[in-house]
Amino acid sequence: MNIPKDSDFSIHNLPFGVFSTSGTSPRVGVAIGDSIIDLAALVHKGLLDVPVEALEQPFLNNFIALGKSVTNGVRKSLQAMLTDEKAALKNLEAVFIKQADAIMHLPVDVRDYTDFYSSIEHATNVGKMFRDPENALLPNWKHLPVGYHGRASSIIVSGVDIHRPKGQTIPKDAKQPIFQASARVDFELETAFIVGKASQLGDSVSTKEAEDYIFGMVLFNDWSARDIQKWEYVPLGPFLGKSFASSISAWVVPLEALEPFRVAGPTQEPAVLPYLKYEGKKNYDIHLEVGIQPEGGAEHTVSRSNFKYMYWNMVQQLTHHTVNGCNVNVGDMMGSGTISGKTEDSYGSMLEIAWAGTKPVAMPDGSTRVFLKDGDTVIMRGYAEKDGVRVGFGEVRTKVLPAR
Amino acid sequence: MNIPKDSDFSIHNLPFGVFSTSGTSPRVGVAIGDSIIDLAALVHKGLLDVPVEALEQPFLNNFIALGKSVTNGVRKSLQAMLTDEKAALKNLEAVFIKQADAIMHLPVDVRDYTDFYSSIEHATNVGKMFRDPENALLPNWKHLPVGYHGRASSIIVSGVDIHRPKGQTIPKDAKQPIFQASARVDFELETAFIVGKASQLGDSVSTKEAEDYIFGMVLFNDWSARDIQKWEYVPLGPFLGKSFASSISAWVVPLEALEPFRVAGPTQEPAVLPYLKYEGKKNYDIHLEVGIQPEGGAEHTVSRSNFKYMYWNMVQQLTHHTVNGCNVNVGDMMGSGTISGKTEDSYGSMLEIAWAGTKPVAMPDGSTRVFLKDGDTVIMRGYAEKDGVRVGFGEVRTKVLPAR
Repeated sequence: MNIPKDSDFSIHNLPFGVFSTSGTSPRVGVAIGDSIIDLAALVHKGLLDVPVEALEQPFLNNFIALGKSVTNGVRKSLQAMLTDEKAALKNLEAVFIKQADAIMHLPVDVRDYTDFYSSIEHATNVGKMFRDPENALLPNWKHLPVGYHGRASSIIVSGVDIHRPKGQTIPKDAKQPIFQASARVDFELETAFIVGKASQLGDSVSTKEAEDYIFGMVLFNDWSARDIQKWEYVPLGPFLGKSFASSISAWVVPLEALEPFRVAGPTQEPAVLPYLKYEGKKNYDIHLEVGIQPEGGAEHTVSRSNFKYMYWNMVQQLTHHTVNGCNVNVGDMMGSGTISGKTEDSYGSMLEIAWAGTKPVAMPDGSTRVFLKDGDTVIMRGYAEKDGVRVGFGEVRTKVLPAR
Repeated sequence: MNIPKDSDFSIHNLPFGVFSTSGTSPRVGVAIGDSIIDLAALVHKGLLDVPVEALEQPFLNNFIALGKSVTNGVRKSLQAMLTDEKAALKNLEAVFIKQADAIMHLPVDVRDYTDFYSSIEHATNVGKMFRDPENALLPNWKHLPVGYHGRASSIIVSGVDIHRPKGQTIPKDAKQPIFQASARVDFELETAFIVGKASQLGDSVSTKEAEDYIFGMVLFNDWSARDIQKWEYVPLGPFLGKSFASSISAWVVPLEALEPFRVAGPTQEPAVLPYLKYEGKKNYDIHLEVGIQPEGGAEHTVSRSNFKYMYWNMVQQLTHHTVNGCNVNVGDMMGSGTISGKTEDSYGSMLEIAWAGTKPVAMPDGSTRVFLKDGDTVIMRGYAEKDGVRVGFGEVRTKVLPAR
C-alpha cells in the first residue's frame, strides 16, 4: 500500500475515529493515508474478529472498553493486511472510504473532562503576567499536577464552528461588571488523553499501572475567553470563560503508536512525593503547531511547540487524579494544559504570544492579532517523526463566528 | 390510601427513583408513604400509558427526557388513582413494593456536574475565616452565581459508604507537602437540581425559560477534604479535595411538587445585570438538617438550615451557566453550594459550625467534633411543609470508613 511519506496516517499510526458517509450511520473507522478503513465492513467480510456491535456505534467508547488486547489486536491485524500485497490487501481496499467523502464525528462520548496545567513554561508565563514576575509559580505547582474539572458537554470535533461567547466582564478600573461579547477570545494549544479502562471508586491507579488506563491521544483546543475568565475565576476556578467550547481532533492516536517517540521529561526538582515517582520515559516528542487563518486570507503559523516540554506527564496526571479514590471511566478526557515552549515562538496561547496584548502579531494580510477576531479559523496540527516513521494527529480546525 | 402525616412521601410529592428487589433489574419507581409504585408494572397492567422502555432502565434519564408533559402526566394519573378508594387503588396496591424490601440505586446517570456557591452566609463565613473579615465577599460574588465544574463519576447514592481520602496536604508553616489521609473530612449541606431538557451549544436559556429545564431536586452532600482542598485549589479551584465522593438522596422530587412552597428570595443589591433578572418567587421554603451518628452511638443534629436562604436561585444559576452558549443535557446535576443560615446552628459544614476547628461540637457520647471521624455517619434530611401538605426528600446517609 502506497502512503505518502508526509502522511499523518501511516501504517504505524492507525488511529481510531467515528465517521459516516452520506446516508449511512456513524461507525468506527481507522485512518490510513487519505482513506478510512470501515472496521464493521471488515468484520462482515469475515476478515476481522471483533464484536460488530462495538463498531456500529456513534462513539468509540464501547470499542475502547473491549480493552487494549482487542484494540491493539485490531491494529496488528490491519498492519498485517496492509503489508500483504496480495489477497488480503485487495479485500481491505474494498472497505476503503476516501476521507474526502466522509463526515467525521466526535469520536468519544466524553464522560468527565479534566484539564491540567502541566507546562511549566505556560504556568510561568501566566504567573509573570498576572501575579509576581519573581515568584511566577504558586507554591503547589511543582508538587502536584494542578488541574480542574472542565465542561464535557461542549467538547466538539474539528470542523464545528463556534460563536464568540457572551458574558460578564469588568472594564479596567470599573466597579461594576458589564455584559458583552468577549473581546479576548483565545485558543490554548493542548493535547488530551482518553481513558480506556475504568477504575472503581475508592481505588487509586499507580504510576506503574497508569499507561494501561490510557487509550490514546487527541489534539485539544481549550477555547478561552480571557475577559470572562478573569472576572469570574476567583475563588473556584475557570467556568464560563472556558465552557463555551473545547475542540478536539477527529482521530484518536493509540498510545502504542507513539511508542517510538518516547523521551525523558524535564527533571522534577524538588523531588516529587513517592506516589508521583515513575520509571522510564513518559514524555513524547510530538511537534505541535498553531495557525490562524483570517476570513478569506492565508493561514499564518503563530506557534511551534512540542509535547515533550510537559513538566508533568500523563502517567503522573492520572495517578494524581485517582490518589484520593476518585474513579475514572472509559471516555474520560484529560487535557494537558496549554503546551508552551521556552521561546516566544513556541507559546501555546495568544495571551502569551502577544503577551497580554502588548506584542501584537503581524498577519500576512497586514492586520494584527492580540486575540482572535470573528472569522478567524484556528488550526492545530501535531505529529511525531523519527527514523522515517511518522505518526500524526491530523488537525483540529475551528472557526470563530460572531456572537449571536 | 393512608399515608402518615409526617411521611416525606405524601400524595403531593410522588418523587421518582430507581429501585430493584432481590433478583430483579433496576427500574423506575415512585415513592408513596413507605412503599414504591413500580411504574413499569403499571404499564404492563394497562393502567399507565408511558413507553415502558423508558421505565425499565437503570437510570431516570430516558424517562425524564420524555418531557414534563409526560412526567407530570404520570404524577397526575397516580394522584387520581391514589385518591380513588375503589377499583383503581386496588390495582395500584398490586404493584406496591415496600421500601424496606427494595434497594435504591443512583437515580440519574449524571452527565456534567456543576457546583455553585450561592449561599451568602456560607460565602461570607468562608471569606471571614480565610480572607478578610471586613471584606469577606470577593468582588464578583454579588454580580454572578459563582460556580465550578465538579466530578460526576464519584456521585453516589444514599447508603453507599465512602473511604477517607488520601492526598497532599501542607502542614502549618511547612514548605514541603506531605502525603496522608485527610485529617479534615467535612460534609457540605446542599441541594442539587437535575436538568430535564437539553439545550443546544451556542444557545442560552433565559430566566423565563429556566424552570422548564429543571426536572427536580435532591439532597446533596458535597464531601470535602479541607486540608487537601486548601493546598491544591489555587489558582484553578477545588479538585481532589472534592472529587472523592458526593452523595445524593435516592428520590428526585419534581419541581412541580415544590410549587406550594415558593417564597421570595433575599433582595439582590446591587441590582443584577439584565440577563439575571427574573419575575416571581424563585426560592423554596425547604427545611434542611444534618445529623452526625458516631459508630455505635446516637445521632446528633448539628445543623438546621433552609433552602430559602439562597442568595442566587436555581433559575439564575441555570441562566448564568448557559449565557455563554454552554449546552446542558438531561441528567446534568447542579449543586446549590453549602446552604448556611444566619445563625451558628444553621451553618451547613463542620468548617463553619466548628469555625475552622476553634469551636468543637460536643456530641452526646462525650466526644467532640471539629471535622468528621472514621465511623461517623452523616445524615441529611429535607422537607417542605405548609397547610398540612408535606413534601420531603427522605435522606442522604453516608458513613465515613477509614482510609484504605
